[in-house]
Amino acid sequence: MNQRVTGVEIERLIQLLAKLPGLGPRSARRAALHLIKKKEQLLAPLQAAIGDTLEKVGICSTCGNIDSVDPCTVCSDSRRDRTIICVVEEVGDLWALERAAAYKGQYHVLGGTLSAIDGIGPEDLNLPKLIARVGEENIAEVLLAMNATVDGQTTAHYITDQLDSHNVKVSRLAHGVPVGGELDYLDEGTLAAAIKARRPF
Amino acid sequence: MNQRVTGVEIERLIQLLAKLPGLGPRSARRAALHLIKKKEQLLAPLQAAIGDTLEKVGICSTCGNIDSVDPCTVCSDSRRDRTIICVVEEVGDLWALERAAAYKGQYHVLGGTLSAIDGIGPEDLNLPKLIARVGEENIAEVLLAMNATVDGQTTAHYITDQLDSHNVKVSRLAHGVPVGGELDYLDEGTLAAAIKARRPF
Repeated sequence: MNQRVTGVEIERLIQLLAKLPGLGPRSARRAALHLIKKKEQLLAPLQAAIGDTLEKVGICSTCGNIDSVDPCTVCSDSRRDRTIICVVEEVGDLWALERAAAYKGQYHVLGGTLSAIDGIGPEDLNLPKLIARVGEENIAEVLLAMNATVDGQTTAHYITDQLDSHNVKVSRLAHGVPVGGELDYLDEGTLAAAIKARRPF
Repeated sequence: MNQRVTGVEIERLIQLLAKLPGLGPRSARRAALHLIKKKEQLLAPLQAAIGDTLEKVGICSTCGNIDSVDPCTVCSDSRRDRTIICVVEEVGDLWALERAAAYKGQYHVLGGTLSAIDGIGPEDLNLPKLIARVGEENIAEVLLAMNATVDGQTTAHYITDQLDSHNVKVSRLAHGVPVGGELDYLDEGTLAAAIKARRPF
């Protein structure tokens, strides 16, 4: 606001909310007004939840997941397969794969991808720990679940090279038509991959 | 998430963020991960800003604006015209009008509109205080700046009736073509209003 019409506390709250992904300046203002309107039901509980998060939540020293226990809920779950590690870029990818409920092994969160443009090398990622885990734990397969972007695939190739000397199977997610997707809206690369990888009906 | 993959603290944070306007479950997860990733730069400052807001921010007893002082920054600004009151539905409308920087009078926030469907009557709004202000203060004009919706306009008519016995001019915002708007995309009602209210070029 050019001219101040409200307190600095509120403007500070709006500024911080505007830094969240998905909220711009306008929606941050709406969110702040909504929070202030619901002080007891929303603003105070949010303060408490942030306090708990600041106090208790950390990064799992094994896999890089975020949790309030270390090792995290996934790593310490004895029902999960301990012979396979799924490598993802970010914690959000781990959560997305868990929502799909089709994988019951271990995870490893890299914390990003290799990127020449952004100057991110292997030492900036949670990579040495992955190689160490494959060496120390009884791992039979590494499933590379990086994004299907240039940086994601570069990173996947790099990890494959690094694991070359280890006796471990390296796999990747399948490419193909998204479930519920319409062919007309799909890019040529995806369609070509889906044709090449066609399966008996 | 069906199966827990992270701490209850984080899930609580996501649940609360998902209640903000503009954030759904998916964007709330992204926002929570972003906050946790930037604990020092974002999560801790947000906790402090919420604390300040909870402690200091309240509703202006004169106009209904939200501020950390009472009367609010707008009401206590001696440079503003004290003979005109602009009536708005919500605090966000007051802020929007202030950003337009074309009005330098007082405000009055109703806190909603009359609504038969939602069972909101005059006693549920900040209306008696408006009538009292018009009676007690030296008010020459009341500018009704409600939304151009059925409920907004019903409320405007109701207020006009209530102010009938007072010696005060009642005005409303002009209807017309939005600045930068294209005629082809405008509804017939707006175009008809813009033609009726045409001005010499």
